[in-house]
Amino acid sequence: MLGNCLRRVRETSPLIHNITNYVTVNGCANILLAAGASPIMADECREAADITSICGGLCVNIGTLNARTIEAMLLSGKRANQLSRPCLLDPVGAGASPLRTDTARTLMKEIQFTVIRGNMSEIKALGLGSGSTRGVDADVADVVSEDTLPAAVDFAKALAKREGAIICITGAIDIVAEETKAYAVKNGTPYLSRITGSGCMLSSLITAFMAANPEEPLHATVAAVCAMGLCGESAEARVQAQAEGTGSFLARLLDAMSLLTGEELEEGARYELFE
Amino acid sequence: MLGNCLRRVRETSPLIHNITNYVTVNGCANILLAAGASPIMADECREAADITSICGGLCVNIGTLNARTIEAMLLSGKRANQLSRPCLLDPVGAGASPLRTDTARTLMKEIQFTVIRGNMSEIKALGLGSGSTRGVDADVADVVSEDTLPAAVDFAKALAKREGAIICITGAIDIVAEETKAYAVKNGTPYLSRITGSGCMLSSLITAFMAANPEEPLHATVAAVCAMGLCGESAEARVQAQAEGTGSFLARLLDAMSLLTGEELEEGARYELFE
Amino acid sequence: MLGNCLRRVRETSPLIHNITNYVTVNGCANILLAAGASPIMADECREAADITSICGGLCVNIGTLNARTIEAMLLSGKRANQLSRPCLLDPVGAGASPLRTDTARTLMKEIQFTVIRGNMSEIKALGLGSGSTRGVDADVADVVSEDTLPAAVDFAKALAKREGAIICITGAIDIVAEETKAYAVKNGTPYLSRITGSGCMLSSLITAFMAANPEEPLHATVAAVCAMGLCGESAEARVQAQAEGTGSFLARLLDAMSLLTGEELEEGARYELFE
Repeated sequence: MLGNCLRRVRETSPLIHNITNYVTVNGCANILLAAGASPIMADECREAADITSICGGLCVNIGTLNARTIEAMLLSGKRANQLSRPCLLDPVGAGASPLRTDTARTLMKEIQFTVIRGNMSEIKALGLGSGSTRGVDADVADVVSEDTLPAAVDFAKALAKREGAIICITGAIDIVAEETKAYAVKNGTPYLSRITGSGCMLSSLITAFMAANPEEPLHATVAAVCAMGLCGESAEARVQAQAEGTGSFLARLLDAMSLLTGEELEEGARYELFE
Repeated sequence: MLGNCLRRVRETSPLIHNITNYVTVNGCANILLAAGASPIMADECREAADITSICGGLCVNIGTLNARTIEAMLLSGKRANQLSRPCLLDPVGAGASPLRTDTARTLMKEIQFTVIRGNMSEIKALGLGSGSTRGVDADVADVVSEDTLPAAVDFAKALAKREGAIICITGAIDIVAEETKAYAVKNGTPYLSRITGSGCMLSSLITAFMAANPEEPLHATVAAVCAMGLCGESAEARVQAQAEGTGSFLARLLDAMSLLTGEELEEGARYELFE
Repeated sequence: MLGNCLRRVRETSPLIHNITNYVTVNGCANILLAAGASPIMADECREAADITSICGGLCVNIGTLNARTIEAMLLSGKRANQLSRPCLLDPVGAGASPLRTDTARTLMKEIQFTVIRGNMSEIKALGLGSGSTRGVDADVADVVSEDTLPAAVDFAKALAKREGAIICITGAIDIVAEETKAYAVKNGTPYLSRITGSGCMLSSLITAFMAANPEEPLHATVAAVCAMGLCGESAEARVQAQAEGTGSFLARLLDAMSLLTGEELEEGARYELFE
């Protein structure tokens, strides 16, 4: 199942529209290419929806949002919805400033996202009620361990129900949840949090997997999360064998993604199903 | 001839003004440094022309254009023309949105570019007539092979005549054409298209080669194209020998450029002349 | 002393707000992570001061300034001053355009910086008087060698006195000066100037060191400068041993920072004190 999701990315090479931050954008473009997809970045309002129209999916990341790009996000998201293209929200820094929290909520109100992906503190900032929004109980730990996993899964499912979207919470254990079903993914390494952009790259990657597998967004998301975790493990092994550090890790991560086969993904994926 | 073009870049270290996209800008800066030139990036209208004035060449890349940077491109391009400095247009994504196609055409109308560089689909989008613009027959294949090369060379020459600019079309075989003369460059590797930024980096590099070799922009362009292709070949060999992937390829490409000598360029360049 | 400064960065993991250029921003984020700190980038006026409020320090870099980001720099700088958080100015390209020189001066007038870091030509552009500003004699060489070091130290001290800030001038020999005391740092390698971003990364790094060592900004700055130089030396050794070039140097530099221990910094730091 997961291996086929990757194979379809490589076969169909979906073009992915990214409205994203300028910190990690290069990594986002390169991870898409490494997986077999193609990136395009466009954040000017006068072309945002046009670019969305020619793409297989849209990734919206608020990492360095500004007034102009927020408008572009709204225009592109609405177009993606009209065309029934998968779209993902990465609410980078939600909770860190009112602008980020409010913008993420506005985007969630105006656009029907297929997936919302963030770390636990970002997702909790969105899960809590504000104004007329109905809150989801976010009394869960910020670090997901085996102990806190059941509560985190319940929280993710509840938010998935409220938003009508797949909720993907990444951390020591990653969670991918829809209303009635969730996966806990156990691939990965703490090394992924020692470089900038792991989360942003994963968001772009999930969008590509969804674009290539439109019939099964949940499995596509799990496949992308497992693929990133596996490549992180592989990169870590190489970096440690060669006495390298975090600078080489990013290159090794992209190396691993460009070399990953469907079979390796199928065999290496480690996840648990919660129904 | 080509070796001397590189030597002059290293000897004169031209400062190159780049108004470019935020996706691949780091690679553009680093390829310029690797070749011996110096980069400066500036896209605010209040300083764009001032920065152009202190530079040896201008590289305009519309990869993530917006209203503000389009204005800066026009201001800088006009200043480069006033000062007779070489300037290059990289029409990233021309054809992908009306804004990109229209902006590229406006830039071509308002500014006399020394070189216009893109892939075949971008260049074809500019070659076709629109409104009062006289079209150039663009009934050529998007992939340039030995079979389609003669037609592609004719198209490039015709566009070079219409625009009064060197036309550089990069792909499996690269074409560098002026009205009556063209080179087909056969250096390179498909690996260059598996990372983001190969084209953008080449555009910055060509600008540096022209700035350092103002008497011979055609040879300078061919030299830069051959240099990039050769470094790609060298990077690919290293990456394959070490079982690396696309993430390491970018670093290896910059490595190769920083180590390339005039002699190696002279000996490794593979091109064919069409007169 | 210096080793402890690094240890405190790793122990306290300060969050650093960077308003910086889009060319080298990825390296700035990654060098902060490699040193044990955390980066956040935010340049929209509607959140700039809010983000500063949650951070341990602010790094302002004018490398690709524009009207919007200049406003954000002012808002964040004032907030940092209100909260007594360390803040650093990196006046990239001061002297290259009136906008850059004027903006750097406006920022210095409106904000009390803890450290101002640049190369000699940038710092000289700020040191000279303009309008009602009292000038500091900048008749010093642009390249600091053993011969020109005493004059450069005097210039840096005089500017430190005028600005009430630590002045850090980086080059072949680095200078870190307050009014009555200065350090000349002799770690480093010319390789650091062959990639883009060494200076920008150092500015972010100094900010993190100050945030983690608020009682001793001078020592913190010297520690960061020595750490960057040492990691450059280590990266150069690795790159040369493996016949790599400038592309691998950046990865090796980040590798070295991620592996550097307090003990290695303490032992490897090479500096001279001028009182």
